[in-house]
Amino acid sequence: MKKLEVEEKLSKIAKNIKSSIIRELLKYSTQPGMISFGGGVPDPETFPRHELAEIASKIVEEEYRITLQYSTTEGDPVLREEYLKLLERKYNINNLDLENIVITTGSQQALDLIGKIFLDEESICAVSSPVYLGAASAFSIRSPMFINVPLESDGMNVEFLEKQLRNLDEKGLINKFKFTYVVSNFHNPAGVTLSLEKRKKLLELAWKYNFYIIEDDPYGALRYEGEHIPNIFKLGDIEHVILLNTFSKTLCPGLRIGTVIGDKNVVRKFVMAKQSADLCSPALTQRLAARYLQKYDIFEKLSRTLELYRSKLTTMLKAFEEFLGGIEGTDWTRPQGGLFTWVKLPENVDTMDMLKIAMAEKVLYIPGEVFHIDEKGKNYMRVSFCLPSHEEIIEGVKRLTKVVKEYQKKSR
Amino acid sequence: MKKLEVEEKLSKIAKNIKSSIIRELLKYSTQPGMISFGGGVPDPETFPRHELAEIASKIVEEEYRITLQYSTTEGDPVLREEYLKLLERKYNINNLDLENIVITTGSQQALDLIGKIFLDEESICAVSSPVYLGAASAFSIRSPMFINVPLESDGMNVEFLEKQLRNLDEKGLINKFKFTYVVSNFHNPAGVTLSLEKRKKLLELAWKYNFYIIEDDPYGALRYEGEHIPNIFKLGDIEHVILLNTFSKTLCPGLRIGTVIGDKNVVRKFVMAKQSADLCSPALTQRLAARYLQKYDIFEKLSRTLELYRSKLTTMLKAFEEFLGGIEGTDWTRPQGGLFTWVKLPENVDTMDMLKIAMAEKVLYIPGEVFHIDEKGKNYMRVSFCLPSHEEIIEGVKRLTKVVKEYQKKSR
Repeated sequence: MKKLEVEEKLSKIAKNIKSSIIRELLKYSTQPGMISFGGGVPDPETFPRHELAEIASKIVEEEYRITLQYSTTEGDPVLREEYLKLLERKYNINNLDLENIVITTGSQQALDLIGKIFLDEESICAVSSPVYLGAASAFSIRSPMFINVPLESDGMNVEFLEKQLRNLDEKGLINKFKFTYVVSNFHNPAGVTLSLEKRKKLLELAWKYNFYIIEDDPYGALRYEGEHIPNIFKLGDIEHVILLNTFSKTLCPGLRIGTVIGDKNVVRKFVMAKQSADLCSPALTQRLAARYLQKYDIFEKLSRTLELYRSKLTTMLKAFEEFLGGIEGTDWTRPQGGLFTWVKLPENVDTMDMLKIAMAEKVLYIPGEVFHIDEKGKNYMRVSFCLPSHEEIIEGVKRLTKVVKEYQKKSR
Repeated sequence: MKKLEVEEKLSKIAKNIKSSIIRELLKYSTQPGMISFGGGVPDPETFPRHELAEIASKIVEEEYRITLQYSTTEGDPVLREEYLKLLERKYNINNLDLENIVITTGSQQALDLIGKIFLDEESICAVSSPVYLGAASAFSIRSPMFINVPLESDGMNVEFLEKQLRNLDEKGLINKFKFTYVVSNFHNPAGVTLSLEKRKKLLELAWKYNFYIIEDDPYGALRYEGEHIPNIFKLGDIEHVILLNTFSKTLCPGLRIGTVIGDKNVVRKFVMAKQSADLCSPALTQRLAARYLQKYDIFEKLSRTLELYRSKLTTMLKAFEEFLGGIEGTDWTRPQGGLFTWVKLPENVDTMDMLKIAMAEKVLYIPGEVFHIDEKGKNYMRVSFCLPSHEEIIEGVKRLTKVVKEYQKKSR
């Protein structure tokens, strides 16, 4: 009997899949004494557990014919309807019906389906640099060509994108260009928000060059200060914009509920692709979210969470100022919401290389290079403030500062 | 502004995805007066709703840090451990540890990941003819070459497969051959079970030609009579066999929990592919199943369900004998378990074409051709007996008989 090694049998896609470094890193976050700025996971104390426990029991007992049975691929109609109501109430997004929405198993499935639906090897798409890792991995297994658009403090450099598109158009390649992927509010990892002006400009490009804008907005409801900027989806037209969202940050991640809003022909393609991906998302978790939305005002409940995160962000920015600011060449984004800040360190710092010192000093961050398809970002790091306590944030930033200084001393 | 049509932007894969005909058909199953033999869904009255309701409430309230949070991609460790115990207790499958198992969002995700991990356009794989539709759709979007192995009353024709493999070997193409996909017990749609002899023969082929056997066993626990035949996985070695299972038929489908058991290098690939597919399955539904398995004997609970299905199957086979048997050229499988019988009608009957008469007569089945990649099976239909009542089964078979007679009269 020959030994069968899985490597002999892998598809091209499987050879392209890399294990997430974040995943590997987060294993260290539970070491005793470790202060972790690594994860982007919400604080479980913010989850409405009493309310969800009561609903869960009730819907299993009384709605078992729905909640314990297969769902439809499109998703629970009650949840879809409640979510559309929520979009109308909160974001003034209206004129949608059930055919404009499909529920996915978390936002990650939506990203995977986007790759499946739109990308071939010869396809082209645009993403920001840095980019959300989950999107990068879902798209890159299809091996498309990426336009990596630099991210600025007011979101992606739309003029850079325009130049690239003009270039593609001149070369006759514009029909290969499928979409631009944007995290419009409180970007992961960078914390920045796309300005109103740039949203409008991006839409003009989408109309001119006829591509989709994939607007991913998991953090939009987590605004701690400043004015809400209308979604690109709201500013634009349903034919050119596909809006992704999730309940992971506003309710809890354990339900794995993502939403895709778009033109009904687009949604139809998502449904067909989802059918072969997992048939349907769990009926139980979907109905749980639906009944919660009917019974409670999710945004009112969220307001206490926002208060908590806002104060943690303030603590972190202050600690940066006090400790990290002393090192020349450092800078960081000052987000108005979301879960992340993006810290720039001096050019000679390689944050991946610096990790071993950080581990020894018991502080964890995510190195910037993992958020880049274009191998940039080596002197950046993603720092999340939502999980550690105020004391841990201050102590953690002190440690980080020490780590950077030690690293610089060693590399001299 | 140009109109953006989604068809302009589709990937090759998306162009290959077809909407499921079953899905479309099942919309009719709720019409008043319709007797549906169409769905393969379990009877919701068999779901242990009181037990699950109690556990659901408890684990949301007390284990919210787990159940409402992101899970790991591999799946809930408690569930994985409980499932391994169950395999040992029920099937004498042992020597496995947590690295040999990954939880998927239903079995369908496992099938999709198999396509992703193993299949390129130039790959070759073997499936039975007829084939489980969910597998066919997950594999065929990758556009591999299929070997369609005829299904017999004791499972796939292994000699046919052997000839094809020899053929591939002679042509120097055997390294393109990735796997044989088998539903070993109570096949969907055909109801047949792979004999012990054929299981052993299949394993010999896998060892000789070095390919994976994907053993999909959703119905194995639903045996109503006869002796359990050891799983191919149990008879073979973990290097060549990957075992898929699901809780959809033994507990309930609403949780969407599938399991993949295999060599740890294989499981690692599933985990990596799943990471970009949906990050993780819901923590809540996984822990719910885990605590249920700890508290109750799932097979003891299942025994009442088996009694119910067994008696419905008996009623159906008797009704076939009494009514359908009167039509020359008809035959059907006599399954010892599972949810389906597979009915052969005279050669001149096209069951897809016959549907409109069936609809008018208020009886629903699934036409055989949808279970074929090789465009065969036009005079077959899949008939499920688990959902309708005894009275409905008898009345439904009467209607089916009438439909066939009417169809034959018209086509003469």
